[in-house]
Amino acid sequence: MSEYIAHDAQGKTVGLVEKKYFTFAEPPNEMVLDSKAKLGPITIAYETYGTLDENGRNVVLVLHALTGDSHAAGYYDETDDKPGWWDNMIGPGKGIDTDKYFVVCSNVLGGCMGTTGPASIDPKTGNPYGMRFPFMTIADMVRAQKALLDHLGIRQILSMIGGSMGGMQLLQWTIQYPDMVKSAIPLATTMRHSALAIAFNEVARQSIIADPNWNNGDYYGAVKPNLGLSVARMIGHITYLSDEALRRKFGRRLQDKDDFSFNFEADFQVESYLRHQGAKFVERFDANSFLYITKAADYFDLTRNDASGSGVQAFSRAEARFMVASFTSDWLYPTYQSRDMVKAMKKNGLNVSFCEVEAEWGHDAFLLPNQRLTNLVKGFLESVYNDIQ
Amino acid sequence: MSEYIAHDAQGKTVGLVEKKYFTFAEPPNEMVLDSKAKLGPITIAYETYGTLDENGRNVVLVLHALTGDSHAAGYYDETDDKPGWWDNMIGPGKGIDTDKYFVVCSNVLGGCMGTTGPASIDPKTGNPYGMRFPFMTIADMVRAQKALLDHLGIRQILSMIGGSMGGMQLLQWTIQYPDMVKSAIPLATTMRHSALAIAFNEVARQSIIADPNWNNGDYYGAVKPNLGLSVARMIGHITYLSDEALRRKFGRRLQDKDDFSFNFEADFQVESYLRHQGAKFVERFDANSFLYITKAADYFDLTRNDASGSGVQAFSRAEARFMVASFTSDWLYPTYQSRDMVKAMKKNGLNVSFCEVEAEWGHDAFLLPNQRLTNLVKGFLESVYNDIQ
Repeated sequence: MSEYIAHDAQGKTVGLVEKKYFTFAEPPNEMVLDSKAKLGPITIAYETYGTLDENGRNVVLVLHALTGDSHAAGYYDETDDKPGWWDNMIGPGKGIDTDKYFVVCSNVLGGCMGTTGPASIDPKTGNPYGMRFPFMTIADMVRAQKALLDHLGIRQILSMIGGSMGGMQLLQWTIQYPDMVKSAIPLATTMRHSALAIAFNEVARQSIIADPNWNNGDYYGAVKPNLGLSVARMIGHITYLSDEALRRKFGRRLQDKDDFSFNFEADFQVESYLRHQGAKFVERFDANSFLYITKAADYFDLTRNDASGSGVQAFSRAEARFMVASFTSDWLYPTYQSRDMVKAMKKNGLNVSFCEVEAEWGHDAFLLPNQRLTNLVKGFLESVYNDIQ
Repeated sequence: MSEYIAHDAQGKTVGLVEKKYFTFAEPPNEMVLDSKAKLGPITIAYETYGTLDENGRNVVLVLHALTGDSHAAGYYDETDDKPGWWDNMIGPGKGIDTDKYFVVCSNVLGGCMGTTGPASIDPKTGNPYGMRFPFMTIADMVRAQKALLDHLGIRQILSMIGGSMGGMQLLQWTIQYPDMVKSAIPLATTMRHSALAIAFNEVARQSIIADPNWNNGDYYGAVKPNLGLSVARMIGHITYLSDEALRRKFGRRLQDKDDFSFNFEADFQVESYLRHQGAKFVERFDANSFLYITKAADYFDLTRNDASGSGVQAFSRAEARFMVASFTSDWLYPTYQSRDMVKAMKKNGLNVSFCEVEAEWGHDAFLLPNQRLTNLVKGFLESVYNDIQ
């Protein structure tokens, strides 16, 4: 438990990270999911950065978004040319300082990056689950993460941080295991998907389901539904950016040509970019995981059993101190949704600060290097760390 | 040329409309397209409402959007339960008053509602064109419309009106045949597609192309790429609405159930709605037409050969009086794009009025009954009609 990401004076990586696995819920002790279905055994892929201190008070739990994984920071080996997905935020001296904090990140339940999901072997049949994988919710993902923390001997979380669907898991944590969570930083997230967000997810799902190679989820060992998954990813990518971001990044610039092709080639750079993103994605992601995880995100709703529909009731269970951040150009989870969340927290007398970060890159902004965000996170973590000691 | 839509005191339709056809560009006199390809013969499906007056000064040309057709108003027969797509605006005493004006609407070149398009028979082969149909531009659509008006003996257009891609044709008309166009009403449109609009169109196209039944465009007489086209339509539908419109119309309401299905059925009403829209669309629209027409819209760019990139040069050729309208919740062609257009018109000393109409229904707002819009159109048409007599 002492992986360390560090760089020497020349910027060379001197500590490498390692992907690890934890398995639990071995039959007959399967985990009971919200859908009442049982699932087990469950393997969780996870990584840790930094060192757990003696009193166990320096844990920061990082929660990834829809297509993320446990590899949040650092490099696996010397030849690795790309670090983890949030390496700009996590590392020695960074916003989440691994010289100081013990950072844990795991792949979500239902995922395809090492954690048990639809592509995993169903021990009952010896074949991949496919559509026989049980439905899981955001709360189920959180249950699995709790089992991992128990395994690691962690009883208290100094802070948790997550954007987008990572933020949903985080919010769920604060009401599901309130006494464990000292503070939380939900970024670019929401208490529930709007009809717009559900609509985009549904079209993406239909695109996968429309691909004959999807074959009702049984495509493992055969041709994969890459065309459908690629279109699904392209849809997602548009929602992660913004009108302004796309205008600045691409405008109407043509791709390697002076004039229109007058055919169905990619004339515009934005077309090439989307096709490239789609093609890259199918190499790393499982179509069935995409279906299950998007549906879990659509189901998530902290206001659902709340007569007022405001989320006030849900947060009555929370104890954490919150720092909520939204991003000006995010039209997938716009600022008004963060404000609603903050209102529900405040009505419960919780200690909440809120910041709308100026950013032109749309929903994706929470993942991109942003000094303002880094400073906010760093300051907030220091403050809760000092409070707790 | 005197179809009349009228209703008696009981609201019963007493005059019916008729779809007509005009064919031109018979080989060897094919039309030369912007792509340099030749196309002919070309048949244009069109409808007219009202009566052309003696001096031919009461013509209003209506231009339809992406998936529209020539059937803008009225009923075809007594059993018809649905009128044309803009019947709330066009008819006796309505915003475009057919007691006063002679209204013409034709299906665009490349379409699939009676006008020559990819599904038409290529006389050279005796088979449908499919992907052998030549690329056509918005300017080519306008050329075909001009041929129709010549055929109808129309030399002057009192006014033209069109929303979305209809607005693009309209703008093109005002610079391509400036002396014919006395006035024009572009609604919810743009001088050029933004990267965001291109991105959505491209994903929709890729969804069709990914469907194996698309078969490189050769699916006529075989199984059609309905799944791909359906997803394409679902994507489009989201862009025609808005966050607020979807929230008000659907929110997170479930479809005929009290709880989540925990499977991939449509749980939410917005999911059912989109699936229904997709399924309905494939019955009336041709996938290849969708590919060609969206590409024509993406290519359209009035600022392209303008050193300033502002559209000022394009409108230096225009003579029409303009009334431009945008809609507050339209995020496909947001108001700033209409303002840019108005600026370019004004720099040329053109007579322009501009109105941003308060409307919560997103881009689709231009098609929906809106008293404010109706009054604006009615007043503007009366004013130009009186000016011209």
